[in-house]
Amino acid sequence: MAKPLNDLSQLCMHTITTKPWPIEKAAHEFSEAGIGGITVWRDALTGRNIRETGTMLRGLNLEIVSLCRGGFFSADTVADRQKAIDDNLHAIDEAFDLGAPLVVLVCGATPGQALSESRKQIQEGISACLEHAAAAEIKLAIEPLHPMYAGDRSAINTLEQANNMAEAIRSPWVGVALDVYHLWWDPNLEAQIKRCGQNGNLSAFHICDWKTPTTDMLNDRGLMGEGCIDIKLIRTWVEESGFNGFYEAEIFSNLYWNEDQDAFLQKIKQAYLKYS
Amino acid sequence: MAKPLNDLSQLCMHTITTKPWPIEKAAHEFSEAGIGGITVWRDALTGRNIRETGTMLRGLNLEIVSLCRGGFFSADTVADRQKAIDDNLHAIDEAFDLGAPLVVLVCGATPGQALSESRKQIQEGISACLEHAAAAEIKLAIEPLHPMYAGDRSAINTLEQANNMAEAIRSPWVGVALDVYHLWWDPNLEAQIKRCGQNGNLSAFHICDWKTPTTDMLNDRGLMGEGCIDIKLIRTWVEESGFNGFYEAEIFSNLYWNEDQDAFLQKIKQAYLKYS
Repeated sequence: MAKPLNDLSQLCMHTITTKPWPIEKAAHEFSEAGIGGITVWRDALTGRNIRETGTMLRGLNLEIVSLCRGGFFSADTVADRQKAIDDNLHAIDEAFDLGAPLVVLVCGATPGQALSESRKQIQEGISACLEHAAAAEIKLAIEPLHPMYAGDRSAINTLEQANNMAEAIRSPWVGVALDVYHLWWDPNLEAQIKRCGQNGNLSAFHICDWKTPTTDMLNDRGLMGEGCIDIKLIRTWVEESGFNGFYEAEIFSNLYWNEDQDAFLQKIKQAYLKYS
Repeated sequence: MAKPLNDLSQLCMHTITTKPWPIEKAAHEFSEAGIGGITVWRDALTGRNIRETGTMLRGLNLEIVSLCRGGFFSADTVADRQKAIDDNLHAIDEAFDLGAPLVVLVCGATPGQALSESRKQIQEGISACLEHAAAAEIKLAIEPLHPMYAGDRSAINTLEQANNMAEAIRSPWVGVALDVYHLWWDPNLEAQIKRCGQNGNLSAFHICDWKTPTTDMLNDRGLMGEGCIDIKLIRTWVEESGFNGFYEAEIFSNLYWNEDQDAFLQKIKQAYLKYS
């Protein structure tokens, strides 16, 4: 059984979830609501002093959970792969300045290239960032993406693959991010969560829901409880694996972004307490 | 290495691929082109005498490869599950009348119901059809569907799951249908094709391509060669597993359905010879 959720202290909001709000407004609202954490998307930092933004967030009693996102390591040419590595080194610097302990990686896939080759390039890319990550004490979390993104966004599509890669790299600065949206369908999920926890690699837990029908492959995620994912069951497995971090609401939704964001935040709070 | 394809004798067209054509027109065009096989979707039989349609197809030297589709076994109530079984028994009768040796199953998933429960209902549903299938000598092929359909179309989403279920049922009248669109991303695909072939369960092989970006979750499939699936590589594994049946072009595409179907068929022929 999942632990009862009685308040919002373990909820972390992704800035992209309330995308229409600038980070200052979002942080103020999250803090007012008693939400405990925030994950910052890099686009939310555009035009800001990153250190000062980190100070502002901590001043509002928000724990900075992670920076989203690095990755996209695979590419056709050595030069482009180096560009990706450079961007990830930069993301590590941004996380350091912000005071975020974790960078989430959407690992990448290159259309027309074998997935096995993309995976090799991803592993090489992450490895090339390790020294910098260790120096900054920033963890990199491999996030497996739903197989519908295998064509162009991620060649890592199951928790088993993420576990394999994290274990192959074997560094205290590499972990795994688990998003129920990407992995809920996998019959091996429970076993792979257990494995991930046992190896100390479970570093982030993202929640939302899968709607039927889903009308947009990227931006039609559902509020918790609105779709067919048994989030409580998956959270039970996650907690049993030893994870005691934040439950991160990451909801890309054209539908909700077009709504009044105050009302949307109310819905998120209720859905979190009831269905997560 | 995949066998070279020098003619269209091993190509099977799904009637839905050229959906704007009535089956009579489609069959004539396929036959004229030297295409060897046809898989008939049930909607193409509406208003026809099924036996006469079978005779017509054989008269055009088209081998009737399968009937699409049965399945959708999961449901909330016993009555609805019985309705699904009855429909599958009817599909077996239709296949018998048509002279198709195989019925492809899109197994079903019920939103809000645990996938494990839907899988149990699927297995019970197939089992309930076995006696009728054996009497008619019609094989039922479990088709795993892409995980993006796990919410409402199929709780069987990997070849491993289809293999598990086919082996659990263990009947000469149950096999597996492999569609590259659904399974191309799976890192365990080669091993599971081998397993499927060794157990004599590989009963159908469907081809098309996965486009990036994919703009519609159902009806934006690509022509072979147009996307990121290495069809030749998968065909190599399929042939090595002992499969020597048809290569079935099953392309749902609003884009191509809106084109001139003669021109589309030309493209399919070329794409088949070059990229399959």
